[in-house]
Amino acid sequence: MRTRIKAAWLKAEAGAQVELCGWVKSKRVSKHCGFVMLNDGSTQKDLQVVVDLDSKAFAKMERISTGAALRCQGVWQESPGKGQDFEVLCESMEVLGEAPVTYPLQKKGHSLEFLREIGHIRGRTNTFGAVFRIRNQLSCLVHEFFQSRGFIWAHTPIVTASDCEGAGEMFQVTTLDLQDPPRLDKGGVDFKQDFFGKPAFLTVSGQLNGEALALSMGDIYTFGPTFRAENSNTTRHLAEFWMVEPEMAFADLKDDAKLAESFLRFVFQNILERCPEEFAFLAKFYPECDPSGLLKIAETSFQWLSYTDAMKELTSAGRSFQFAPEWGHDLQTEHEKFLTEEVCKGPVIVTDYPKGIKAFYMRENDDEKTVAAMDVLVPRIGEIIGGSQREDRLDRLEARMKELSLPTEGMSWYLDLRRYGGCPHAGFGLGFERLVQYCTGMANIRDVIPFPRVPQGILF
Amino acid sequence: MRTRIKAAWLKAEAGAQVELCGWVKSKRVSKHCGFVMLNDGSTQKDLQVVVDLDSKAFAKMERISTGAALRCQGVWQESPGKGQDFEVLCESMEVLGEAPVTYPLQKKGHSLEFLREIGHIRGRTNTFGAVFRIRNQLSCLVHEFFQSRGFIWAHTPIVTASDCEGAGEMFQVTTLDLQDPPRLDKGGVDFKQDFFGKPAFLTVSGQLNGEALALSMGDIYTFGPTFRAENSNTTRHLAEFWMVEPEMAFADLKDDAKLAESFLRFVFQNILERCPEEFAFLAKFYPECDPSGLLKIAETSFQWLSYTDAMKELTSAGRSFQFAPEWGHDLQTEHEKFLTEEVCKGPVIVTDYPKGIKAFYMRENDDEKTVAAMDVLVPRIGEIIGGSQREDRLDRLEARMKELSLPTEGMSWYLDLRRYGGCPHAGFGLGFERLVQYCTGMANIRDVIPFPRVPQGILF
Repeated sequence: MRTRIKAAWLKAEAGAQVELCGWVKSKRVSKHCGFVMLNDGSTQKDLQVVVDLDSKAFAKMERISTGAALRCQGVWQESPGKGQDFEVLCESMEVLGEAPVTYPLQKKGHSLEFLREIGHIRGRTNTFGAVFRIRNQLSCLVHEFFQSRGFIWAHTPIVTASDCEGAGEMFQVTTLDLQDPPRLDKGGVDFKQDFFGKPAFLTVSGQLNGEALALSMGDIYTFGPTFRAENSNTTRHLAEFWMVEPEMAFADLKDDAKLAESFLRFVFQNILERCPEEFAFLAKFYPECDPSGLLKIAETSFQWLSYTDAMKELTSAGRSFQFAPEWGHDLQTEHEKFLTEEVCKGPVIVTDYPKGIKAFYMRENDDEKTVAAMDVLVPRIGEIIGGSQREDRLDRLEARMKELSLPTEGMSWYLDLRRYGGCPHAGFGLGFERLVQYCTGMANIRDVIPFPRVPQGILF
Repeated sequence: MRTRIKAAWLKAEAGAQVELCGWVKSKRVSKHCGFVMLNDGSTQKDLQVVVDLDSKAFAKMERISTGAALRCQGVWQESPGKGQDFEVLCESMEVLGEAPVTYPLQKKGHSLEFLREIGHIRGRTNTFGAVFRIRNQLSCLVHEFFQSRGFIWAHTPIVTASDCEGAGEMFQVTTLDLQDPPRLDKGGVDFKQDFFGKPAFLTVSGQLNGEALALSMGDIYTFGPTFRAENSNTTRHLAEFWMVEPEMAFADLKDDAKLAESFLRFVFQNILERCPEEFAFLAKFYPECDPSGLLKIAETSFQWLSYTDAMKELTSAGRSFQFAPEWGHDLQTEHEKFLTEEVCKGPVIVTDYPKGIKAFYMRENDDEKTVAAMDVLVPRIGEIIGGSQREDRLDRLEARMKELSLPTEGMSWYLDLRRYGGCPHAGFGLGFERLVQYCTGMANIRDVIPFPRVPQGILF
């Protein structure tokens, strides 16, 4: 009966029998025995298997090379070698699958760029093993945080007919033949013959549907894929990424900001406790991986600052920015970093942004100039969460949509949420890959999702 | 400080203060006081708020009708009325949002068809409140089951360039202008100018990518949306649905079947314990909701039967089926139900299907006629899970793909998984909505996902 290597490490005891499977990280043969470093993906810590020259298994050492898949039975023994306390003395070995000399992960220290080209096996490296295990634990923490507070995981739709939020940056979803789509008499494409009977797109956010669910189930969160057809070939953009979007009924901006703060502190505290070996590894090789910075955020009360006050700080700082700060313009990353790193020296929640730079659904404040929006800024990257209280007054919402020339066709259900027992409600959005990047210190967002989708890039 | 009604019920005690928010389910006014049934989506059990004629809040009763959103402060008291032990005597009330007389949920007992048309608020009904809370808890149980066994939640891609599995039934994803796509010299569509530089589609299964991750991380599961552009307007098909797909390295068909059995038993056992009030409600109104049937499955060891033996049972049954059972043909639902309900009288795992009716990636058995596939059949619906051990022998896999004229272009990474330390591996797929249907007894699959997507149907 096979034991996963992570579980096996916990039970290591000289003399105990163990059966292990895994892939060979490296192999060497000395005069008296062979050494195989084995990992099965469950842990950061490779396990050394020792094969005595006079054991039956030794004959199999020839067939083994880096990348081969093995099943080994043996006995734990204390290790005289450095780097581990215990090792397994092999009693029998089965080579499940060999690897050729052309196996691409021969040496240590491949570039991340190269590893992206072999994304189907990069999970076998120390770096990506660590990143993907941290990603998994972060996913669990998202669920644990919201479920423990009574939020319902809402599966909002991926394919949508609404293009309210992301006009021009959406992927179209179709079953029509692009070569020769059916036409109307006047020559236009006949979308009545498309699968859904009208143009359909990949969602850019689950929020609008999330609001509908919050206004019936109370508190919900989405955690699913979202899409942007933005032609941005950067280290911070993906065409397909996962978003976390909680939405609370009977809640205002203050409740929303408190939820965001609690969420981040909970996640940073717990992820460090769950993945100590992964963080130890990443912090050693990636300077941007900063466990002590995460811990500091977990232990800090977030400061609050209105956008208007933030603007005062920026304009009176006597600092030359690439983009001059000016009331009415969005905060640039350089501004955000200045606010969190130098003004507040820690996480800060900036509230009440000018309505001109925020989405139509945000609730207008009494000053009629700003909206009840909030962004959470953290050192090193700036914005990590953006949220708002939603406009729950039907007349204001309709007026704002008209002002912005937004189509109301197909949006009557969204307006109904203000007609039928509307109430204060609020929520936020967190790009999950940004969170994984922030924790792991990976500089390129393509390295925190197993199979990244980017412009002109759809491998695997 | 507001308490959710579910949490409030647990702390009900005569004399205790409480603050509640929610939507009005019904209202009536007697000579001496008003009664409001309130629910906030957190629980099946409405809460009765009593408003005395001589209280300040009574004046607000006029503005209240079914669907209105309220905030109430008051005191718990024992209830003389039937149907509840406790009620809340209102001390102050705020009407957060009124509802018009045209509010569509005025009466009880709307048809499910009608409620589908108001999907944005159907979650406020008893039925959909129950279904969506059960759906949420089932989601949690999926994660708990796999995480507790060391599986990693893998986010496999939604947009894919591979059309290996679902040719002809996939949605295309594009940023090209359907009205006038760019053309090659010879007139064909120039997909180099599409976002990904080639045709792209919505995934029909995360399995192939899941195999890559299992062969680096050990054991993984997907839990995400998948898509079928099948023009099936039935009660069992959705164009967008969620799938659960575990994949294990170092595992064979037997391990796979054991995992499927453990999974179902775990889920059925726990969902009943977590949602007792929801099941009590649904079982009362929906005959197909069968908690005792679920419990029976949770407590039963599943039987095993080879496809060939199953065929013998079917052909010797002396039963007239709509489709005559014949070796080499797929089992119809009527056959599956006969096997599980009458032959085995409980859940059964049918193994080793003819290779001609199964997918290319399934491992060929030594008889060269069958593959290491398994389906789990349960009473009432037949197949609920389908899985297999995967073909890990490169030569066999390549031969099979050639035999079936499957394109190998773009699949070299998948074949690499057999070149680079391949090993026995296996997994299964579970349609999550089918599971929710099976538990809740909802006859139509459109009633177990918040916003269903079907042919010609993309509301909300």
